[in-house]
Amino acid sequence: MESYSIGVDLGGTNLRIAAYTRANNLLDTILLPTRLEAGREAVAEDLSSAVETLERRFSSQYKLIGVGVGTPGPLELPAGILHHLPNLPGWDGFELKAHLEARLKRAVIVESDANLAALAEYVLGRGKTLGVDSLCMLTLGTGVGNGIILEGKIWDGAHGMAGEAGHATIYPDGPACTCDSNGCLEMYASATAVVRVANERAASGEAPRLVQPEGAPKWTARALAHAADAGNADAAKVYTDAGRALGIGLAALVNTLNLPLYVVGGGLVQAWHLMQATIFEELIHRSYVYRLTAPGSKVAKGHPKGATQLLPAELGPDAGLLGACILPFLELERR
Amino acid sequence: MESYSIGVDLGGTNLRIAAYTRANNLLDTILLPTRLEAGREAVAEDLSSAVETLERRFSSQYKLIGVGVGTPGPLELPAGILHHLPNLPGWDGFELKAHLEARLKRAVIVESDANLAALAEYVLGRGKTLGVDSLCMLTLGTGVGNGIILEGKIWDGAHGMAGEAGHATIYPDGPACTCDSNGCLEMYASATAVVRVANERAASGEAPRLVQPEGAPKWTARALAHAADAGNADAAKVYTDAGRALGIGLAALVNTLNLPLYVVGGGLVQAWHLMQATIFEELIHRSYVYRLTAPGSKVAKGHPKGATQLLPAELGPDAGLLGACILPFLELERR
Repeated sequence: MESYSIGVDLGGTNLRIAAYTRANNLLDTILLPTRLEAGREAVAEDLSSAVETLERRFSSQYKLIGVGVGTPGPLELPAGILHHLPNLPGWDGFELKAHLEARLKRAVIVESDANLAALAEYVLGRGKTLGVDSLCMLTLGTGVGNGIILEGKIWDGAHGMAGEAGHATIYPDGPACTCDSNGCLEMYASATAVVRVANERAASGEAPRLVQPEGAPKWTARALAHAADAGNADAAKVYTDAGRALGIGLAALVNTLNLPLYVVGGGLVQAWHLMQATIFEELIHRSYVYRLTAPGSKVAKGHPKGATQLLPAELGPDAGLLGACILPFLELERR
Repeated sequence: MESYSIGVDLGGTNLRIAAYTRANNLLDTILLPTRLEAGREAVAEDLSSAVETLERRFSSQYKLIGVGVGTPGPLELPAGILHHLPNLPGWDGFELKAHLEARLKRAVIVESDANLAALAEYVLGRGKTLGVDSLCMLTLGTGVGNGIILEGKIWDGAHGMAGEAGHATIYPDGPACTCDSNGCLEMYASATAVVRVANERAASGEAPRLVQPEGAPKWTARALAHAADAGNADAAKVYTDAGRALGIGLAALVNTLNLPLYVVGGGLVQAWHLMQATIFEELIHRSYVYRLTAPGSKVAKGHPKGATQLLPAELGPDAGLLGACILPFLELERR
């Protein structure tokens, strides 16, 4: 009997629950709103019911090997306790793993969603294509998530909180972040950030072409990218500045970790073409590790690991959900 | 017969070559000037002769298990080739490992000196005291070195160039660094940097108490620390600003890696007491991973890995040399 897993992506807006086999990828996906106003126990119940629905649907045909759940960070591991999540207010201290295991009467693996996106990109995306054993991924969405895969395993860190490079400082005197720091990468290179920057520049008079006529729809990251593509230089500058912050952050990661692959994913990566020039400009300027090992460099040629690659993600918005589905397979192999 | 190793610390000013046993630590150390003007082959010959001297001295009594050599980075591994070292001009592309192995007719392990300092601190210093399996060390000397130990092993990265967080950007518009970037941690928190900052502030009139009377000795990092200890507020500010840059850099490392231990070593750490307030101020401000896992925090209590610790190094200036001596023992165990 073929094995299958169930993966859950627990987000601040939506719950996605999927059944997955290695041969067929996603068999089926259930999409539900995250009923934050009903409280965390109600959301956990929605999630558990959906897991059971998929279990009933597939367990005659396949053997269920495990359930993986992705949540926003910071997540305390191995206990699986949530802490201070800006997008899940009221969930601080929630023992998600224990709660789900008691409800579902089976082991549940909990991981941060950004780590799971990195895992999916490693197993099914760029990592697979390039055949590398390690990578670092930044996921540009509402915030900037980060996941690190070292020698085939998620690097969770001592407490489960590794991979928070979205909160590395880029400009020390920059705007206040939800994490209570200032000038985090997330304040410049997330979907939220580009919209905030556009609105600030419109209001200050710095970017007259970003001023919207009265009654016009508000800026979204997508609308800004369309405007930039249509020749709006102020909109384009929002993205080149985001790329600059990304390049500064990536250069520090390259200098610190020297991995063979860095991947940028998440919704904002649809504007990769608007950001890539400044990303690489800063990366080349600020990382001699990158300069020495970039494609075509002296070290890259003839080195067993090849060049350091920086690429947009291959997988789309399903990356986190796919990672939640993959994780039970990897854990099983490790035992 | 008890085993011993020979370790080499190849620096821009001095060569240090030592024999080491686990029971007796350093048996003997040879100190030589690094004859840069004589060329890299001459330096390699000085180093090889000293290794042979120690070998003759100890091989009747102990069994030589290997030779470890530490050099400034960036170092290409596994080939053991040096690249663009600011402190070893003319050494770019030198195949140090192959050269020494041909000369000494035995396997030689080459590693970056900052990685070896971290290894020594892991095996014999703070890592041993705290019983952790991973740590990240910053070595504040002429530059800012960095070494990362993950689960008991040096994290070399794909090309041997991991651990260059000394070249992470702290202030993007800061002064030009020897690595051709701007505003690197090394430009604020090295011995070279504090002297440069003091001289700049004296010359600009910003720090009148740093202006030296004519004929007085030039500022050194040590003299600045003494002046700060004696109540010179301008000298003290040079160190609190260095601590601020360190705290910003450490916060990014804590957010990215979530290790149980961060260690600050090197000559400048003698001024730890002058820097620690701003180091911790920035770290607490900029790292929610640290805030959640700091000593006394909710997560730290009861977590199997305990708290995230940030401490000055336990070992002194011998750390790099000790690491070079330890490495052959670890490699042997791994085989």
